[in-house]
Amino acid sequence: MELVIGTRKWSTWSLRPWLVIKRSGLPFTEIEVPLREDGVTSEAIRPHSPSGLVPVLKDGDLTVWDSLAISEYLAERVPSLWPSDPAGRARARAAAAEMHSGFSSLRGECPMDLTATPRAVELSEATHKDIRRIVAMWSDMLARHKGPFLAGDWSIADAFYTPVATRFRTYGVMLSDYGDAGAAGEYAERLLETPEFREWEAASR
Amino acid sequence: MELVIGTRKWSTWSLRPWLVIKRSGLPFTEIEVPLREDGVTSEAIRPHSPSGLVPVLKDGDLTVWDSLAISEYLAERVPSLWPSDPAGRARARAAAAEMHSGFSSLRGECPMDLTATPRAVELSEATHKDIRRIVAMWSDMLARHKGPFLAGDWSIADAFYTPVATRFRTYGVMLSDYGDAGAAGEYAERLLETPEFREWEAASR
Repeated sequence: MELVIGTRKWSTWSLRPWLVIKRSGLPFTEIEVPLREDGVTSEAIRPHSPSGLVPVLKDGDLTVWDSLAISEYLAERVPSLWPSDPAGRARARAAAAEMHSGFSSLRGECPMDLTATPRAVELSEATHKDIRRIVAMWSDMLARHKGPFLAGDWSIADAFYTPVATRFRTYGVMLSDYGDAGAAGEYAERLLETPEFREWEAASR
Repeated sequence: MELVIGTRKWSTWSLRPWLVIKRSGLPFTEIEVPLREDGVTSEAIRPHSPSGLVPVLKDGDLTVWDSLAISEYLAERVPSLWPSDPAGRARARAAAAEMHSGFSSLRGECPMDLTATPRAVELSEATHKDIRRIVAMWSDMLARHKGPFLAGDWSIADAFYTPVATRFRTYGVMLSDYGDAGAAGEYAERLLETPEFREWEAASR
């Protein structure tokens, strides 16, 4: 299998399935396509991706062009990428899918940049609301499943929130200002300490 | 199981898993919570939904709060909701997940309104681009799987694009202006002719 990813320091969409495929233990190769270089992006991506977006996973004749669908494809081969309990799996999928479709204000105001110097920024009310929702959801999941990750053991849901943890770090977001009693902040740090994320981060510099 | 949905004529997010649960054949009850009535929305939804959003599916103690995760939960019980072939299933999931995360310009400019009188509207370049991408993806999937739906038989991917078909109808979008050789337009009509969608539409008036 071959995973086509965007620029590592910026591409949150690529980081998610890359963490999943690393955790899967399945063999894969990767190609990094530069993003955000005017006049290059679309043309460089097009040969790899029918949607003009990264990431895409290629497996023989098959091209899977969405990060959540790539994750599900890998989980069919390695079921431990989702929780084994049906209720835990449903909650983990809801968390991942909520990230996939939501939190647009946070994403727009706090883009991932793994090479940026951390700095506090002024955030809009819509972004405050996004962060409060993330803290509430994380806190509920962590208490319900007793950690250390959202649904117990590491799962695809944790891959989907790893870019969020980098945003909180880069933009100086203190989760205690958003209702965190401690568990959410510890979880954010835990996401940034996984060997897989550290490998991605080291290759982003 | 109980599915909590938003106002039928507007709630694209609710229509998708409602079509899926109807197709599943599993027994369920539904509750409709009014959307977009100032001062009512959040408070009316909150008792049902941890995210403050609809739809949510309740099954005993479990609450699943995202439309794609609800669909996956139902597909675990009724596997025919996804294609049986792994490659077809991966493509169907990519199509559904691309809808889940994307096409924000089309969604913003052409909100679903099942009671509106059809009318042509001026669309932005970003929305034109969304429509061209949808036509290209539909055309590829329909040709590849030989129809009548995106991945052959009806699947969750078709539920996710049914609201899009209503937008095209309501806002007078001619798919032939966006590269359709015919199959995409016929597919959009087919989505609006399923007995499940017609039942939803009849209850929206």
